[in-house]
Amino acid sequence: MDEFHVPADEIQTRINRLQKKMQDNNLDGMLIVQRVDLFYFSGTAQNGLLYVPAEGDPILFIKKYMPRALKESSIKEIVDLRSIRDIPAIIMDFYGYLPESLGLEFDVLPVSDFNFYQTVLKAKRYLDGSTFILETRMIKSAWEIEQMEKTAEISGKTFEYMRSVIRPGLTEMELAGLSETFARRLGHGAYLNARNYQTRAYPWHILSGKNGGMVGFLDAPASGAGTSVAFPSGAGNKQLLAGEPVMVDLGTVLNGYHTDETRMFAIGNMPDRAMKACQASIEIHDKVLEHVKPGVVVSELFNLSVSEAGALGYAREYLGPEGYKVTFIGHGIGLELTEHPVIARDRDYVLEPGMIFSLEPKMVFENEFSAGIESVFLVTETGYRMISRVPVEIFIC
Amino acid sequence: MDEFHVPADEIQTRINRLQKKMQDNNLDGMLIVQRVDLFYFSGTAQNGLLYVPAEGDPILFIKKYMPRALKESSIKEIVDLRSIRDIPAIIMDFYGYLPESLGLEFDVLPVSDFNFYQTVLKAKRYLDGSTFILETRMIKSAWEIEQMEKTAEISGKTFEYMRSVIRPGLTEMELAGLSETFARRLGHGAYLNARNYQTRAYPWHILSGKNGGMVGFLDAPASGAGTSVAFPSGAGNKQLLAGEPVMVDLGTVLNGYHTDETRMFAIGNMPDRAMKACQASIEIHDKVLEHVKPGVVVSELFNLSVSEAGALGYAREYLGPEGYKVTFIGHGIGLELTEHPVIARDRDYVLEPGMIFSLEPKMVFENEFSAGIESVFLVTETGYRMISRVPVEIFIC
Repeated sequence: MDEFHVPADEIQTRINRLQKKMQDNNLDGMLIVQRVDLFYFSGTAQNGLLYVPAEGDPILFIKKYMPRALKESSIKEIVDLRSIRDIPAIIMDFYGYLPESLGLEFDVLPVSDFNFYQTVLKAKRYLDGSTFILETRMIKSAWEIEQMEKTAEISGKTFEYMRSVIRPGLTEMELAGLSETFARRLGHGAYLNARNYQTRAYPWHILSGKNGGMVGFLDAPASGAGTSVAFPSGAGNKQLLAGEPVMVDLGTVLNGYHTDETRMFAIGNMPDRAMKACQASIEIHDKVLEHVKPGVVVSELFNLSVSEAGALGYAREYLGPEGYKVTFIGHGIGLELTEHPVIARDRDYVLEPGMIFSLEPKMVFENEFSAGIESVFLVTETGYRMISRVPVEIFIC
Repeated sequence: MDEFHVPADEIQTRINRLQKKMQDNNLDGMLIVQRVDLFYFSGTAQNGLLYVPAEGDPILFIKKYMPRALKESSIKEIVDLRSIRDIPAIIMDFYGYLPESLGLEFDVLPVSDFNFYQTVLKAKRYLDGSTFILETRMIKSAWEIEQMEKTAEISGKTFEYMRSVIRPGLTEMELAGLSETFARRLGHGAYLNARNYQTRAYPWHILSGKNGGMVGFLDAPASGAGTSVAFPSGAGNKQLLAGEPVMVDLGTVLNGYHTDETRMFAIGNMPDRAMKACQASIEIHDKVLEHVKPGVVVSELFNLSVSEAGALGYAREYLGPEGYKVTFIGHGIGLELTEHPVIARDRDYVLEPGMIFSLEPKMVFENEFSAGIESVFLVTETGYRMISRVPVEIFIC
């Protein structure tokens, strides 16, 4: 594998887009600390902070480890930081003034860190800057689209590989292990980034037979069994059986860019009722895609999918059992597994070229099985393009 | 594997111990939201919040999913929660009063969540309750010690398995995949819990040859290469070679309880210089253990290890290269990979029976290799007991 770096012009464009939003919202400066955001705006995921003024060049403060940060980042001003307390003096030196209003990532920054920052950073007002960051990251560049296509290639090969290794007697977790080992050989980074502190993202959401019918704490139609009450979601220790529907929902990551894809598998044969539900999921999926193009409000896509599921006779099972239905059918994806825009009932994001999202119409037959599909799509100037390379079919192995 | 549950008397004892600390610190109530803390104090990791008053029974609020929470938790009062806004009224109903001072987990709770909680929870004062939680969790019960011994058994078998599969040409990541697949078959849950929002814990810290000599952003002697600049630590895509030192640092988790263990491997033979460094690490490790018993301040253990490393001629390499040395030699471990007490230069925790910690004296030969060892120990009434089952030796395969 070639050495991977984020190009300097990518970084500059991202900073410019963020600064535009800051100017429009009268924010004087942003201090970016979360590791994925830092990587997005600086090209390095070393331990540090990025100060972005509303205008002018940013400063990258590196706590550890300077030699790697210098090699990885195209930011011009990179400073070796001994203490967070030194930041205001360095900003003052460089720009001649301190920001009155300072944006921080309130959606991830813990209260205790914020309390400490407030004692040392000397801004007059602290504001939540996370939306500006997330809305900048929401629109992918041509270079980013290329990265996601490379991830999709690995994921496509991994699904093919699973066809050859799936067999009765493997546990869900073991099947996950085999497929991850295969994907890692191709560059899969194994760790999925989740933004929310309560979310534990993992690439092993494999729910076989009745485990697919288990609702749980996840904001997903089904949670599965998990390995224990301490981790009650995703693949568990149940062995796969021939003739049961197996939902395989895989996250794959290459150079920080994720894909998230689901296919239904069965060993030998898929029971008729499950087969029909799987096919209906694909019909819903195709119906939604007919409407994907710039200008469409994401909630319309959600509503459309619900109508279609109803028309096909799956109102009861669609998106989970009554009382526990999820209110989304997909989500933006990129450097984190779940990004803006979430394709949800209560979201008014309007599709724009460069958005990349997963589409995942799923059904839960409680205590019986799950059915569904998930692929990743790019919004283009005129419609959409499929980023995923996995065939849109039911995998009977 | 048997169905795993946290016994009711465990939960009651934990609540009692937390309440004692709350009473000693004049805290009227705690609202526990972080998923691992919630699991520790309630026995369920479903989506919810636990309210613990300074005296009396707690209330478990469940957002999703009630049927599993009811089955998993021994908390008597479990309430189906529609909205966080309903919490004060439910507390008022149950206890007849609202807490004036309310503890929250400031070390993990994001600012935006806290801002929202403040608008609805109606306490007069909000305080950081995380230390009370972490210091309760720091002392393990006999039942918890048993759980960690079960995890250690799986880890021990996994290290043995690695002896048989390690071979030249495997990438670091692929070796990690093979060992994780093996461990998952035995119940390994694969996901390691890290508390800090900036920490991405993973079970594949395998650093071969010169990758072991790579310092990086991690608060660890060496970070390794990682798979890309987007994830610049841990195993990477480098192929293993015969005759190079390979540091294998594995995290294993069963039913939520972690182990963290390191052994040095070499295929064929270990170079003499590396072999001597590995042996010296074991000598430092043994020297520290001679002093492990109740009443000892953890910083003394740290200082002792530094003296011993110096006496053995490894002052330069011990704990990382000059300017980048870490200031700890181990850490508490349990439901999270890193817990109290950290065995660090600047910590004054006094060892108590029931503390469980990893001990990891490590050395970095910059740009060449890492050497070291790590096992997990329990502090007993009179000294210590090794929880780890991995032989204390250098694995020449």
